[in-house]
Amino acid sequence: MTQFQSRRDMFHLPSGITYLDGNSLGPMPKDAVDQARQTMADEWGEMLIMGWNKADWMNLPGRLGDRIGRLIGAPSGSTVVGDTLSIKVYQAVASALELRPGRKVVLSDNGNFPTDLYMAKGLLDSLDQGYELKVVDPEAVSDAIDASVAVVMLTQVDYRTGRLHDMQAITRKAHDAGALMIWDLAHSAGALPVDLEGCEADFAVGCTYKYLNGGPGAPAFIYVRPDLADQVRPALSGWLGHEAPFAFDLDYRPGEGVSRMRVGTPPVIQMAVLDAALDAFDGVDMSDIRAASIALSEQFIREVEAGCSDVELASPRDPEARGSQVSFRFGEGYAAMQALIARGVIGDFRAPDIMRFGFCPLYNTADDVSQAAAALCEIIATGEWDQPQFKTRKAVT
Amino acid sequence: MTQFQSRRDMFHLPSGITYLDGNSLGPMPKDAVDQARQTMADEWGEMLIMGWNKADWMNLPGRLGDRIGRLIGAPSGSTVVGDTLSIKVYQAVASALELRPGRKVVLSDNGNFPTDLYMAKGLLDSLDQGYELKVVDPEAVSDAIDASVAVVMLTQVDYRTGRLHDMQAITRKAHDAGALMIWDLAHSAGALPVDLEGCEADFAVGCTYKYLNGGPGAPAFIYVRPDLADQVRPALSGWLGHEAPFAFDLDYRPGEGVSRMRVGTPPVIQMAVLDAALDAFDGVDMSDIRAASIALSEQFIREVEAGCSDVELASPRDPEARGSQVSFRFGEGYAAMQALIARGVIGDFRAPDIMRFGFCPLYNTADDVSQAAAALCEIIATGEWDQPQFKTRKAVT
Repeated sequence: MTQFQSRRDMFHLPSGITYLDGNSLGPMPKDAVDQARQTMADEWGEMLIMGWNKADWMNLPGRLGDRIGRLIGAPSGSTVVGDTLSIKVYQAVASALELRPGRKVVLSDNGNFPTDLYMAKGLLDSLDQGYELKVVDPEAVSDAIDASVAVVMLTQVDYRTGRLHDMQAITRKAHDAGALMIWDLAHSAGALPVDLEGCEADFAVGCTYKYLNGGPGAPAFIYVRPDLADQVRPALSGWLGHEAPFAFDLDYRPGEGVSRMRVGTPPVIQMAVLDAALDAFDGVDMSDIRAASIALSEQFIREVEAGCSDVELASPRDPEARGSQVSFRFGEGYAAMQALIARGVIGDFRAPDIMRFGFCPLYNTADDVSQAAAALCEIIATGEWDQPQFKTRKAVT
Repeated sequence: MTQFQSRRDMFHLPSGITYLDGNSLGPMPKDAVDQARQTMADEWGEMLIMGWNKADWMNLPGRLGDRIGRLIGAPSGSTVVGDTLSIKVYQAVASALELRPGRKVVLSDNGNFPTDLYMAKGLLDSLDQGYELKVVDPEAVSDAIDASVAVVMLTQVDYRTGRLHDMQAITRKAHDAGALMIWDLAHSAGALPVDLEGCEADFAVGCTYKYLNGGPGAPAFIYVRPDLADQVRPALSGWLGHEAPFAFDLDYRPGEGVSRMRVGTPPVIQMAVLDAALDAFDGVDMSDIRAASIALSEQFIREVEAGCSDVELASPRDPEARGSQVSFRFGEGYAAMQALIARGVIGDFRAPDIMRFGFCPLYNTADDVSQAAAALCEIIATGEWDQPQFKTRKAVT
């Protein structure tokens, strides 16, 4: 019986599978299917268009935003759910830039997830007003923050190594230099305690299909600092961010606070599934999850390094400096990961040589860790990875 | 037995309800629940992260795009599904503007759905380079197309009146003036034949929760003229529009053709539901749907006008000049619509005085039309609408 056994029971975990890839896609909560059925059959099917009122679909983005807000230190009414993380990054950068006129630099690091960089660059290329996306090494971010920087945009947890940025220190540095701070919490929300209000972050975005288990393509979220939200001009000024969407005015007037970051019609079925998934966090303290996560990742590093000398730890050794994942480098990491998957141990691979393993104490146990570590060591020790079927690259890796 | 009886049987239509609001939200296809269950339980639940390959989730946006493409005259490979209609409008306008450097006007009409105008204006305000959103009366669009216009952006079917723009004529006029043409097909796709290729439209966008019955918040679609697509720079340059998303390059390289209009991770569950919904169109010729739709709307106008002199037709009387809806003006239209809904006849209301009725021959019959017309006439003749409970405005109307 592990600490979170009752939570583990809330998930469907296929038999024979050790799942350490919840940092890519969380497993399915058992209630998700029934929640989707209910939303479809009982609401869409029976209420038809009236579901927007009767089933309160219209307020799902804010209601789910508040549920996530509790996990990331965001006060009620400061977070909304919708769109994809890419879109939410765009909204945050576009809004932040206008709040710092005259400053031309968006600062990020090369450990950021590529789509964040792509979206920012795409925006800056549209603006064509001398803006620059400056991408430095993660360790060089702090020193690169100067008076030219309008916005610092970082993902807290490096998707490859799990390396953790110090949100408090970097946000303070950004503010001291007069810049605004955007945090991408894709690998943080649901994985470790985040204190958006405490660190005074200006914007935060994240996805809900990783540690929040919202399902494939679950919607993203965006947070705007409450005292800033009413100053924000939404670049993506969609009708559901309008003060009165159903007045059908020809002119846009932004809604109150973060509600203006809503854009189009919310994906109700996908949101219903996310709603069910968030039940797994009810009554859970993120610091308990963090402590359990560190125990699992420390155990994994210990057991892998004890049994296998051919891999190199790619994650920070200090657990306080890494998120809820552990990555090892191995030259034939792709093939080794395929061999692991063939044995039912699911992690994933990031080029050129990183094997990633995510730990989610809500459903991962010490047994999972032992099985994964033993399998990895055996695959490498025996050269089991060195087979043609493990070397053929798939579309999604 | 009506022409489309076997199609009608594919939908869940609540007993006692006459549903004439499929132009807002199509009813639930019976297979949708099982499709969602299968995608969740059998794919997400069992395949976990491997679903992206094994269940081919990654190609849903293009596959569904092609299914919709068949209904709107778009060749295979020219349409992708994703995001919301608002986002797709933004993408189209942003891309089109860059293809017409030096031109500063985006031309639209005041019959366009407001979010199209909001999104375009939001973009132009970001660009801040002398751009103008020019909004004229629908009848004045053609004459307003001149050499200053970069982009003409119109919704084919007016969401209030059903008035239909001539896609062929306006697109030709735009091209003659050197402008690009964006069509919003929100009220067209699945409702009437559209020939994007034939009319040489440059961009088209639309939603899938109206006549395509994809469910509340179903994703949108975007079409780009094939010979134009590779010239387009995506302003919303997300990782799934990248040539090689899983190379995780720091620099963005647009994918081939319309695939570059993909942005973030696709909402797989919502897309699976849409996939099931599109089955209702398999083997159906849009011209047969159009003929049946005209028969229904002509019947409705005839019966309402025969039974009730207090309402005024707001839709074009010529069926060739209107989409698949009929609107009547009535000073107390809001209350009258609430009284209709209380009787189980579902249409909707658009301020200030428009009662809308949508006709979808896949599930609507001549009996539906007779019942709705009779109920409307009786409600108005008897003053049944004049009760307090029908006059209180709801959040979504």
